[in-house]
Amino acid sequence: MTSRTYELDRAHVFHSWSAQAEIDPMVITEAWGSRVRDEAGTEYLDFSSQLVFTNLGHGHPRVVAAIQEQAARLCTIAPQHATEARSEAARLIAGLAPDGLNKVFFTNGGADANEHAIRMARLHTGRPKVLAAYRSYHGGTQTAVNVTGDPRRWPSDTGTAGVVHFFGPFRYRSEFHAVTEEQECERALAHLRRTIEAEGPATIAAIILETIPGTAGIMPPPPGYLPGVRALCDRFGIVLILDEVMAGFGRAGAWFALDRYDVRPDLITFAKGVNSGYVPLGGVVISDAIAGTFAHTAYPGGLTYSGHPLATAAAVATIEAMTGEGTVANADRLGRDLLGPGLRELAGKHAVVGDVRGVGVFWAVELVAGRDTREPLPAAATAEVVAACKRAGLLPFSTANRLHLVPPCNVADEDVTAALGMLDGALSRRS
Amino acid sequence: MTSRTYELDRAHVFHSWSAQAEIDPMVITEAWGSRVRDEAGTEYLDFSSQLVFTNLGHGHPRVVAAIQEQAARLCTIAPQHATEARSEAARLIAGLAPDGLNKVFFTNGGADANEHAIRMARLHTGRPKVLAAYRSYHGGTQTAVNVTGDPRRWPSDTGTAGVVHFFGPFRYRSEFHAVTEEQECERALAHLRRTIEAEGPATIAAIILETIPGTAGIMPPPPGYLPGVRALCDRFGIVLILDEVMAGFGRAGAWFALDRYDVRPDLITFAKGVNSGYVPLGGVVISDAIAGTFAHTAYPGGLTYSGHPLATAAAVATIEAMTGEGTVANADRLGRDLLGPGLRELAGKHAVVGDVRGVGVFWAVELVAGRDTREPLPAAATAEVVAACKRAGLLPFSTANRLHLVPPCNVADEDVTAALGMLDGALSRRS
Ligand SMILES: Cc1ncc(COP(=O)(O)O)c(C=O)c1O
Ligand SMILES: Cc1ncc(COP(=O)(O)O)c(C=O)c1O
Repeated sequence: MTSRTYELDRAHVFHSWSAQAEIDPMVITEAWGSRVRDEAGTEYLDFSSQLVFTNLGHGHPRVVAAIQEQAARLCTIAPQHATEARSEAARLIAGLAPDGLNKVFFTNGGADANEHAIRMARLHTGRPKVLAAYRSYHGGTQTAVNVTGDPRRWPSDTGTAGVVHFFGPFRYRSEFHAVTEEQECERALAHLRRTIEAEGPATIAAIILETIPGTAGIMPPPPGYLPGVRALCDRFGIVLILDEVMAGFGRAGAWFALDRYDVRPDLITFAKGVNSGYVPLGGVVISDAIAGTFAHTAYPGGLTYSGHPLATAAAVATIEAMTGEGTVANADRLGRDLLGPGLRELAGKHAVVGDVRGVGVFWAVELVAGRDTREPLPAAATAEVVAACKRAGLLPFSTANRLHLVPPCNVADEDVTAALGMLDGALSRRS
Repeated sequence: MTSRTYELDRAHVFHSWSAQAEIDPMVITEAWGSRVRDEAGTEYLDFSSQLVFTNLGHGHPRVVAAIQEQAARLCTIAPQHATEARSEAARLIAGLAPDGLNKVFFTNGGADANEHAIRMARLHTGRPKVLAAYRSYHGGTQTAVNVTGDPRRWPSDTGTAGVVHFFGPFRYRSEFHAVTEEQECERALAHLRRTIEAEGPATIAAIILETIPGTAGIMPPPPGYLPGVRALCDRFGIVLILDEVMAGFGRAGAWFALDRYDVRPDLITFAKGVNSGYVPLGGVVISDAIAGTFAHTAYPGGLTYSGHPLATAAAVATIEAMTGEGTVANADRLGRDLLGPGLRELAGKHAVVGDVRGVGVFWAVELVAGRDTREPLPAAATAEVVAACKRAGLLPFSTANRLHLVPPCNVADEDVTAALGMLDGALSRRS
């Protein structure tokens, strides 16, 4: 007995990143706050935030009302005109960025934000190459997937001319045989510097990094790393692009994750949390120097829906709601006082947990076959843990040998406690 | 005296395809049907449909209501789940496509639709190259801009490995020294065949073409051209991608412009008119053979907002409204009986008009310095005509030496007559 929605999905919807005949999508019929319901009526705590984007949870009344009002007033306007919601969203977003980044180029999502940021950097510097981290995801369009580090890049790895990958810091699985965080930081910076020198500093337009790599494993960098990268960029005239698509807008317990580090990028890319994913929106926040390059020379790029009124109205309402409700501070508190400590307690209890990392509402639990070897738990065993979570009513985001616990920034404390309990149960079956 | 919206736009919004210090955007405060109003209170007939996407005009009540209802019910769901609006939109869109194209992959706009279509073709055939027309626009992300033919490609012309451009048919400015339409068709097909043979048929994954090239000049192909391209694709095992981003969803007086020709593509890309641009949406309609390639092998591509509920709900309402209101037939009638004949009459009257081309509500007026030489009217003189249109209250879409008259598919007959009068006045000053 399947529903019409399910049948039509299987007949007509082609799904991302999937073997079409081997998937069995869950039909979601309702969603509110940190919860979703499937068509069997089962309720889940949504600790995936879907694809880590419902930073205000589902159905936030203020954002819903803003979309409804804007839809009634003015759904859509082409990018060459000006319109209130877009102007206001640009002001608010620029206001959240560090000093000296004052212009916003709007896109539809994260991939095209990174495409345009890289184009701006190449044209601004007149240099061809981009350096990017192996442990990263930057999107599915050609340049965005080329700079992506994870294996999703491989099947599309054509036309990569000018992209060079390097290893960022990650103490739990250090590439640099480091023992302390300081050592990892120092060695990762030395490795980056050697890569720059070996590639030729004058050939490198940009370094692109997720401020906190997300899908690759939620790996907050050591405190000195990003300032060190900034110093290398300054020394060699390289543009620093920080990808805040997943880490931004409260996720890391800060407006931008970069606020946690002493670093000023030249370009910031964003999407997802900017409007809780209620309407497709992404963009690039641009430094005055780079914007200046395109003051009297046309920027050669664009898209039909740049600064779409409905999407930017949702962003305005999201930022206002987050400000008014103290959402960002709440995410920071949850990470410090409840979710972080709770996950660390589970790590102490369950040998299958090799590492717990994160900040704010942005946490990874890494499952291992053995704590000493740190060998990743095999896929089938990880899938069992995920299935046990779901049976208990918890929807985590899972990838490789990890569960990511990434609830909305305004998730209730009781829901965090409940989710920790469900996870405890799911892990117990393996311990 | 400028408004806050204008000031904030100039301070914080980075505009597509523009020298940021040299633009003076019009602030749009209101829009309804085929009309917009700027902040000075001036009303314009919107014969640009913004960027040729408001196929149902502004503020269509049924689409607005669908967005409002969906926003209240379920704004957003990740692509891996299934949801009613997405299933229904996929069913409706697949239903409009030729037999044998049954699956829809949703994207945010036209560029990413073309990116994914090309990736599918490359993986399906295992071949690297894509053939594309010089007179074309396919979008702003890397692969989409690489296959684009117009000069907007040049500044981003890196990583073009595997893209080869050729000339399509265009009798008014024939590359083939043709005198008749039949000759143009025959010679354009011979040129394409020679290009395929010279590049190596077994190296070519796809040919991508706008069914009716849009921004490049609205050039309906001769009747035999697309069937001829299909035959070449069949002979050499090449995937045919038809880009219907601008030409589709009523614009050409047909659901898909390809319905006017005897051709079945393997992949159709769409965006814009699919939901009148009310919420960012694009996609690829996929043949059973290509979908089959990804039945048991994962398709390596995706995006966060694939099949966004708000966007697909707007598509469902748009398609239902167009069906219920006979919008597509109306566009066809307007082209045949009113807009086409009216523009041809102006061509007869004004020597500055070199050519009038189009179908449905998809018309180009090509301005020339002299009818014999067909030399394009210089930019400044074309800008004067556009300015005169605006002073008269008409907003055309203008590019190079052309005005494109591309009103909503449901524009009122009186508005078409009024617009023709305004255009007549604007052209008179040059004749
Ligand atoms: C860090 C990061 N950058 C870019 C993207 C791509 O964004 P989108 O899927 O909206 O294109 C993602 C998506 O997950 C991401 O996590
Ligand atoms: C034929 C065609 N294809 C693709 C595109 C790109 O669409 P988007 O701007 O939504 O990325 C356009 C945009 O004008 C277009 O006209």
